[in-house]
Amino acid sequence: MELFFSQYIYDSTLRLDAEESAHCVRVLRHRVGDSIDVIDGRGTLMHCTLLNADPKGAEARIDERVYGFGSHPYSLTMAVCPTKNIDRYEWFAEKATEIGVDVIAPVIGERSERRVLKTERLERLVKAAAKQSLKGAVPEIAAPVSVRDFILSVPEDAVKMICYCFDGEKFSVRDVLWAGCALLPHARKGQNRQEEAPASFTEAPDIYILIGPEGDFSPEEAELALSRGWKAVTLGPSRLRTETAAVVATTMVYYAVLTEE
Amino acid sequence: MELFFSQYIYDSTLRLDAEESAHCVRVLRHRVGDSIDVIDGRGTLMHCTLLNADPKGAEARIDERVYGFGSHPYSLTMAVCPTKNIDRYEWFAEKATEIGVDVIAPVIGERSERRVLKTERLERLVKAAAKQSLKGAVPEIAAPVSVRDFILSVPEDAVKMICYCFDGEKFSVRDVLWAGCALLPHARKGQNRQEEAPASFTEAPDIYILIGPEGDFSPEEAELALSRGWKAVTLGPSRLRTETAAVVATTMVYYAVLTEE
Repeated sequence: MELFFSQYIYDSTLRLDAEESAHCVRVLRHRVGDSIDVIDGRGTLMHCTLLNADPKGAEARIDERVYGFGSHPYSLTMAVCPTKNIDRYEWFAEKATEIGVDVIAPVIGERSERRVLKTERLERLVKAAAKQSLKGAVPEIAAPVSVRDFILSVPEDAVKMICYCFDGEKFSVRDVLWAGCALLPHARKGQNRQEEAPASFTEAPDIYILIGPEGDFSPEEAELALSRGWKAVTLGPSRLRTETAAVVATTMVYYAVLTEE
Repeated sequence: MELFFSQYIYDSTLRLDAEESAHCVRVLRHRVGDSIDVIDGRGTLMHCTLLNADPKGAEARIDERVYGFGSHPYSLTMAVCPTKNIDRYEWFAEKATEIGVDVIAPVIGERSERRVLKTERLERLVKAAAKQSLKGAVPEIAAPVSVRDFILSVPEDAVKMICYCFDGEKFSVRDVLWAGCALLPHARKGQNRQEEAPASFTEAPDIYILIGPEGDFSPEEAELALSRGWKAVTLGPSRLRTETAAVVATTMVYYAVLTEE
């Protein structure tokens, strides 16, 4: 199954941009009348029929919409400090997209060595990963902010977890999820529906996980998070790199929900 | 904590090879009398005192041994078909080492596009990852064999899981583990011990997970596995690349054990 992406969607038709059109018409040689599948990047898959095979701006008729295509029954924001080696961060972004993530938020810690991050490459990369892993939604890449500002920006009622190396009481991802996510089984009904999204789907629990830089968070950042209701979680005894911790945490949320089904 | 690696271990002394010696003496500027930590790659950490700072062959006195350093309470073999893009396989090997794996077995499926794999790079890579993630044991990189030969080589009483895309009954990794791993809590006692390894440590359950190539296993390979007692497991609804599936499965074993503690 090959997915195309379009932001130009009208009531019953859509248009592919030049890059997607060229891939559809020149590379895959689709012709007028062919069936193609297109995602809007916001969770909807559209089964379409190609109306116009213009390699610079192909157009298609929308025959059927599938809402919540390839979705997961939660909303997960992974707030991860950029790694010194940016390839590692891009790798995390690709893997998290395959596994299931909604927002990737680059956050800059007081101890972060890398303090700037260009998001354009990440945006292209997660769009490709979403298409490749058959997801209707493309994760949002948030604009980089400081760890402090990020902590202060997260809603009070969200499920909030922070991973750091300091001592002190720590919970498992599963324990924090079940303490905060009574909505999960309810929200799970939202996947791959052919009717309009019910309210419950939009009520999927908001989960935030904060992963620090190679040098960990500062004590002040950790204390601020705890004072704002974030739970310190353990990712187990292994010493994980930043990007590995981020993928492991993403997998723990995915798996905790999966094994409750 | 900086770890060195040595294969030249005697009763109360050890020697570092030229590469490790140069790193110890030239790069980190260790001098005679300095304390250094050395792993043997088979699970033991040795606290040592540098006796001789020869940058081509440094020698150290072993002051204390810690068995099962950074170990996990199971023995996990990840048998994964090499990916077309070898970088993705190397990435899996590094991440699996950080999370916890004992043997990485490249297996060649009937539908594998890549049918040869050089293991030297993988061996260097997992040694570096084990040192970086503070593990006394370096995963073994097995010689590539066919999926069929691999399936036939696995002991009858091991916990065996296969991930494929065919329909049919599938279990969660957790369910298969708990059906087959009564030994886990017992084996867990084996970690970071300063006395000799007890028998129980060697009784950690043997877990085998088989991950197919981009084109999946052949029906014959899947049927052979099932006929030999392998359980088909699901890694959840997300469509994962080969290397992502391998890291997710490694994490599921790690997490399933972690959350039972």
